[in-house]
Amino acid sequence: MVKVTVWNENRHEQKNPKVREIYPEGIHSAIAKFLEKADFEVQTATLDEPEHGLSDERLNETDVLIWWGHIAHAEVSDEVVEKVHQRVLDGMGLIILHSGHFSKIFKKLMGTSCDLKWREADEKERLWVVEPSHPIVEGVGEYIELEKEEMYGEHFDIPAPDELVFVSWFEGGEVFRSGCTYRRGKGKVFYFRPGHETYPTYFNKEIQRVITNAVHWTKPADHPTPVYGNAKPLEKITKK
Amino acid sequence: MVKVTVWNENRHEQKNPKVREIYPEGIHSAIAKFLEKADFEVQTATLDEPEHGLSDERLNETDVLIWWGHIAHAEVSDEVVEKVHQRVLDGMGLIILHSGHFSKIFKKLMGTSCDLKWREADEKERLWVVEPSHPIVEGVGEYIELEKEEMYGEHFDIPAPDELVFVSWFEGGEVFRSGCTYRRGKGKVFYFRPGHETYPTYFNKEIQRVITNAVHWTKPADHPTPVYGNAKPLEKITKK
Amino acid sequence: MVKVTVWNENRHEQKNPKVREIYPEGIHSAIAKFLEKADFEVQTATLDEPEHGLSDERLNETDVLIWWGHIAHAEVSDEVVEKVHQRVLDGMGLIILHSGHFSKIFKKLMGTSCDLKWREADEKERLWVVEPSHPIVEGVGEYIELEKEEMYGEHFDIPAPDELVFVSWFEGGEVFRSGCTYRRGKGKVFYFRPGHETYPTYFNKEIQRVITNAVHWTKPADHPTPVYGNAKPLEKITKK
Amino acid sequence: MVKVTVWNENRHEQKNPKVREIYPEGIHSAIAKFLEKADFEVQTATLDEPEHGLSDERLNETDVLIWWGHIAHAEVSDEVVEKVHQRVLDGMGLIILHSGHFSKIFKKLMGTSCDLKWREADEKERLWVVEPSHPIVEGVGEYIELEKEEMYGEHFDIPAPDELVFVSWFEGGEVFRSGCTYRRGKGKVFYFRPGHETYPTYFNKEIQRVITNAVHWTKPADHPTPVYGNAKPLEKITKK
Repeated sequence: MVKVTVWNENRHEQKNPKVREIYPEGIHSAIAKFLEKADFEVQTATLDEPEHGLSDERLNETDVLIWWGHIAHAEVSDEVVEKVHQRVLDGMGLIILHSGHFSKIFKKLMGTSCDLKWREADEKERLWVVEPSHPIVEGVGEYIELEKEEMYGEHFDIPAPDELVFVSWFEGGEVFRSGCTYRRGKGKVFYFRPGHETYPTYFNKEIQRVITNAVHWTKPADHPTPVYGNAKPLEKITKK
Repeated sequence: MVKVTVWNENRHEQKNPKVREIYPEGIHSAIAKFLEKADFEVQTATLDEPEHGLSDERLNETDVLIWWGHIAHAEVSDEVVEKVHQRVLDGMGLIILHSGHFSKIFKKLMGTSCDLKWREADEKERLWVVEPSHPIVEGVGEYIELEKEEMYGEHFDIPAPDELVFVSWFEGGEVFRSGCTYRRGKGKVFYFRPGHETYPTYFNKEIQRVITNAVHWTKPADHPTPVYGNAKPLEKITKK
Repeated sequence: MVKVTVWNENRHEQKNPKVREIYPEGIHSAIAKFLEKADFEVQTATLDEPEHGLSDERLNETDVLIWWGHIAHAEVSDEVVEKVHQRVLDGMGLIILHSGHFSKIFKKLMGTSCDLKWREADEKERLWVVEPSHPIVEGVGEYIELEKEEMYGEHFDIPAPDELVFVSWFEGGEVFRSGCTYRRGKGKVFYFRPGHETYPTYFNKEIQRVITNAVHWTKPADHPTPVYGNAKPLEKITKK
Repeated sequence: MVKVTVWNENRHEQKNPKVREIYPEGIHSAIAKFLEKADFEVQTATLDEPEHGLSDERLNETDVLIWWGHIAHAEVSDEVVEKVHQRVLDGMGLIILHSGHFSKIFKKLMGTSCDLKWREADEKERLWVVEPSHPIVEGVGEYIELEKEEMYGEHFDIPAPDELVFVSWFEGGEVFRSGCTYRRGKGKVFYFRPGHETYPTYFNKEIQRVITNAVHWTKPADHPTPVYGNAKPLEKITKK
C-alpha cells in the first residue's frame, strides 16, 4: 500500500475566513480525503508541528510527499529541506502543488529561481493535455476547466521539464506550463499548478484524478541503487 | 490482463543451425515463454503467416507488440506497417528489439535512418543503467553484463530519446544508447538493443526482466483521446 | 554566406484574391525579401516548377530550406520528399511554417500524424517565449502578438520537441506549442506556427526576426560525419 | 568580443610537482592561452584571490565563466556561489570542467548530488559524439581519444541533460555521459568531463576545440528578459 504524506503550510486557513470556509479542516485534509478513497495510506503534516511534522521516522515511512506552501516558505527549516531533498534523491516521490513553486525544496531541486507572473482576478483556467500518453492524465479529458483560479503566467523560470503534460490557458491572456515532470536521482517529481487557497480547486474531480495518478507515477519501486566513489576496474587495464 | 503479441521474422531459425540450436522454437517462442510466466496473455506472429500474423483483429487485440526482425525487413508489407503505425499512435505499446532498429516501423516512427556501427566478434557488452528512477529498470542491478554479443556502436542515427535508460559499453571500444524510450501519439515505444540471434541473450534473466518491465511501461491505459480538425471556439471572440 | 531556399506551394495566391492582395508576388517572395536584407543568399522555389524547383543541384546548394504548403501537400512528389529528407539528415536546415505541419516532409521527419485543431475566426494569437535562452528568440520581447490569425490548438500530435521555444495563447480558448526545435541526423528542424495566407503575418517584424534567427540556428556547419556499417574493433577483443 | 573568465582552484599546481610540470602556470593559464588564440578576451581568476577573483565587477564583465575545481570546493564562499548562480540565470554562460561536477555552483544548478564513480589508473578514454548536429562538436571527428585519463563512471547523478553530446568509453569497463548541456534561466551551461590534473588533457587540440565551441554556444545574446510578479491582464476578464 502506497504511503502518502500530505504536507501543508496551513496558515491561510488560520487567518483568512474565506479560505477556512472552503477548507475548514485545511487544504491537507481535503487532499488526504480523496487520496484515502484511492486506497493509499495517507497521513498529514503541517508547518507548525515539531519538525514541521516531517521527522526522520515519518519521512522514511513516506513513499510520496505532497507539498502545499505559500506565505511561509521562509519558515521551513533548512534541515528539513535537506532531509526531504535527500529522500527524493533516494527515491521518494514528490508532488509540488501551486504556490509550492517558490518552496525551498522545489527551488533546490530545480536550480533556478522558479519565478513566474501571477494575478488574482477570478479568471478562467483551462489546462490542456499536451502529452496524452502519460499515466498522469489517465481518465482525464482533453482539458480540465476551472471557472475561477489565480493566474500563473510565463515565463516560468524552471528547467525544461523532462515531460510537459499540461499547458494552461488563462482568460487574461497568458499561458503556463502547468504540469511538469522531473527525475532527480532515484526520485520522481511532479509540479502541478492549480490550487489557489481561495478557490475550491481540490474538490474538483479531475484535479483529484490527476493528483491520484501522480501519486502512482511518482511512487518508488525496487530501482537499482547506484554505487558511487572509487571503483575497481571491471576489465584489465593495459599499463602504458 | 495485458495482451502481448511477439512478432518475429523467424528466418535465421530456418536457415542457420546455430540459431536453431539456441532457439529451436524460434526467438518469438523464447520471448513468449518468459512473458507468460509474468502473467501476460501472449501470442506470437511471424513474417510468413498471412498478413505476417498481424491481421486487423489481432492488432486490435494487442496491447503491446514486440518486434524482432533482421534480414527480411523489406519483405514486411507497407500495408501492415501502416496499420501497426496507426495502432501505436492510437495507444498500442511497441517494443523494438536489437536489429529491429532497421525495421520499416521503427524508421517510420523515428524519421531518421536509424543507422549504426556493428560487428560480430563474440565480444562483451555491459549495459549501464543511466536512469535508475525508470520503471523499466525495476529489479535490475547497476548494469547487465552479456559475455558475448554483437556490437552496435554510435553514432546511432535516432532522434534524442525522450528518456535514455541504458548505455552500453563494448569490449572493442564503442558505446551505444541501448535503452531508449519514445512517445508517439498516445503510444509508447521502447528500443532495447540486445538479442543477436547467435547468442542466448533472451534466456538471460535480467534481459527478461527489462522486457517484462517494458511491457508494463508501454501498455495502454484510459488516456485522453484528442479531437482533431475544425473546432468551435470555447470563448467568445471579439470581432475586429 | 548562408544559402536559403524559400519553398512555397503558391496556390492560394493564384486562386484567392484576398491572398493575392496581401502577397501579390507570393508568400515566398515576401519571405525572401526580408531574408535578403538579413544578408542571406536567397532563392525561391514553387510547387509548379519542374521538380517543384528542388532539383538535386538546387538542394545541394541549399543550407536552409523554408517550407510553406497547405492545400496541395499530396501533389509534392515522393521522390522530392525523399531527397529533402536525406539532405536534412546530411545537415541541411529545415524551417517548416504554419500549415506545413501536414506536409509530407514534416510528417516523415516526425513519425506522427502531426494533426491538430484549427479554426479561421480572425482571432488574436499571443506567442509566449518559454525558453528565453534560445538563439531563436534573440531580439524578441516576452511575447509576440498577432491581432488576427488562424487558430491551431492542442493536442498537436508531434513528438515532444527537443526544445519548446514558444507557446501560443488564442482568444477562443486554446493553447499551442508554436515554436519547436528538433534534431534529425546532422540536420536541425524548426517548426513555427504563424502565417495563415489570409493575414499579413510575414510582414510582422518580430515574426521576421524569429525566422531570420531560425535560419542561423538551423544552418549547417563542419559537423562530424558518422561512419556507419561494419566496424573494426578499436581495442583488442579477448577470445572466449 | 566575447569575454571569458577562466576560474581555477589552483591548488594541485602548488602541491604536486607532477601537476606543476604539466601545467607550470596553472590549468587556468593553459586554458586561457588557447582561448586567446580563438580571439576571445580572456581573464583568469583563482581561489586564493580576494573574492576568489570573482568580484561583482569581474562577474558583470564576464560573458562566459569556465570552472575547474577539485580538492577545495568547500572553500568557495557561498556568497560568491550565489552571485555566480544569479549571473547564470541572467544569461552568463558557464562551462564546468571535470571535477567541477562536485562544485557548489554545479550542484546548485543541477539540484542533485552530482555523484559518480571514479578511478585513477592511467586508462584510455574515448569520447563518442552522440549528437553530431550540435555546434559544440563542430570540427571534431567521430570520437576523441585520450590515451590516459581518470575514469568517471555511471551512474552520474545529474538531471537528464537537455542535450547529450558525448558519451565516454573507458578501458576499465565503464561509460559516462561526458558532454551535457543545460539551460537555466537565460543562461546556458555545459559540463565537459575530461581534464584530470595529472594528464596534459587541455593541450589536446580536439579538447581545446570543444571548449572553444562551448564558449560560442554558451555566450549570452540579446535575449528576452522575462518580467516576473503581479501582472495586469492583457485581455478583459469577465466577472463571474
